[in-house]
Amino acid sequence: MAGTLSIVGVGPGDPELLTLRGARLIGAAPVVAYFCREKHPSQARTIAQAHIGPGAEELPLVYPFTTEVSVNNPAYHQNMSAFYDQSAERIAAELTVGRDVVLLCEGDPFLYGSAMYVFDRLHARCHTQVVPGIMAMNGCWSQALTPMTHGDDVLCVLPATLPEAELAGWLDRADAAVIMKIGRNMPHVRKAVAQSGRMEDAMYVERGTQGAQAITPLAEQEGTAPYFSLVLLPGRKRVR
Amino acid sequence: MAGTLSIVGVGPGDPELLTLRGARLIGAAPVVAYFCREKHPSQARTIAQAHIGPGAEELPLVYPFTTEVSVNNPAYHQNMSAFYDQSAERIAAELTVGRDVVLLCEGDPFLYGSAMYVFDRLHARCHTQVVPGIMAMNGCWSQALTPMTHGDDVLCVLPATLPEAELAGWLDRADAAVIMKIGRNMPHVRKAVAQSGRMEDAMYVERGTQGAQAITPLAEQEGTAPYFSLVLLPGRKRVR
Repeated sequence: MAGTLSIVGVGPGDPELLTLRGARLIGAAPVVAYFCREKHPSQARTIAQAHIGPGAEELPLVYPFTTEVSVNNPAYHQNMSAFYDQSAERIAAELTVGRDVVLLCEGDPFLYGSAMYVFDRLHARCHTQVVPGIMAMNGCWSQALTPMTHGDDVLCVLPATLPEAELAGWLDRADAAVIMKIGRNMPHVRKAVAQSGRMEDAMYVERGTQGAQAITPLAEQEGTAPYFSLVLLPGRKRVR
Repeated sequence: MAGTLSIVGVGPGDPELLTLRGARLIGAAPVVAYFCREKHPSQARTIAQAHIGPGAEELPLVYPFTTEVSVNNPAYHQNMSAFYDQSAERIAAELTVGRDVVLLCEGDPFLYGSAMYVFDRLHARCHTQVVPGIMAMNGCWSQALTPMTHGDDVLCVLPATLPEAELAGWLDRADAAVIMKIGRNMPHVRKAVAQSGRMEDAMYVERGTQGAQAITPLAEQEGTAPYFSLVLLPGRKRVR
């Protein structure tokens, strides 16, 4: 294929946390693709908006579900796989006629990013480059003014979708930890943190670096949480 | 203190991986501070150079050792602590007379960054903001075209300074892992990776995103390595 696929991480929300390289590639792109849900604006597009050229074609890749389907349902994985196949082919059609495509991705493309599923399908067939993005975690720990790892601290990045006991086990062993993908998993995240005896140090950050950012001790946080929220547990703080 | 301290992560090496916000703050700063070794240029300053204003005062903070002293030597920690005290006071002197200071930091300031020791000393005394930076790890996995975490993969960030058996234990448990601070620890890093049975998947990235970048399978890597190198172990690759 004659075109180049550039997968660009646009960072966690604040448009100024885009990299210079990301901004340059977006500005020069004849085709800008992004994932979104039906009837919802794409968060990645909103972040990148100021840089998209006036003549650029936009390629929204609309997730097939309007309500959340359980990941335990086999239909979920079949539908998602078909959706990523179709998304990859829509991008490939542009690359084939020699048009470069920028695929926007919130945070960093290779840390839990949907863009990985497009990358997996296309990188053997076309020239691909990946521009890293500021991740939600470092966007959040910077806003929370929370240094995370000193010396030989180990940092564990944990999805809240893990079972409670497994999550608690990781929190026991880790020096510093970040728990991502909170959303509906908030109740068992709170239990796992309490079980590990680290509630006192746990910070909750909601929509970090975005407009409606909120930073509070996890101990004061009740109920569920938006997907764009995370919990920070700083390391051992062995200060020199 | 009347001035604002801005701690700015400048990313892993490629000057284009600076954020828009970082570039703006550096460009407006009357005082730009950075750590460096005697008779060596500061890597952070080199990355940021194009944005430093022509009238800016530069404040190099020169580490007290010209050769590496073992961290097991108590004198090391005493000297470093005194050095961070002095560095903080030099910055405080500028803030006190109302001059804003930008402190440059390679990678992200709050992940193993020297800037944390200045932050710890000053943040209760002055207005402080932190701008996240692209970390070495996501700079490297982007360059190596290596997706790291799918689904509920756990990512562990491990300093190579850990004892070999401890490192191997983490590699057994982790889905995805990044081993940082390789340098002279390369021989025991290779042993720990081999012991965990994951040598086949381990990528070695030297000076990632910098001029002399090299990406090779860890299995082909002998001897020691520069400090700016890391090992990537991708997660379970459960592809949709």
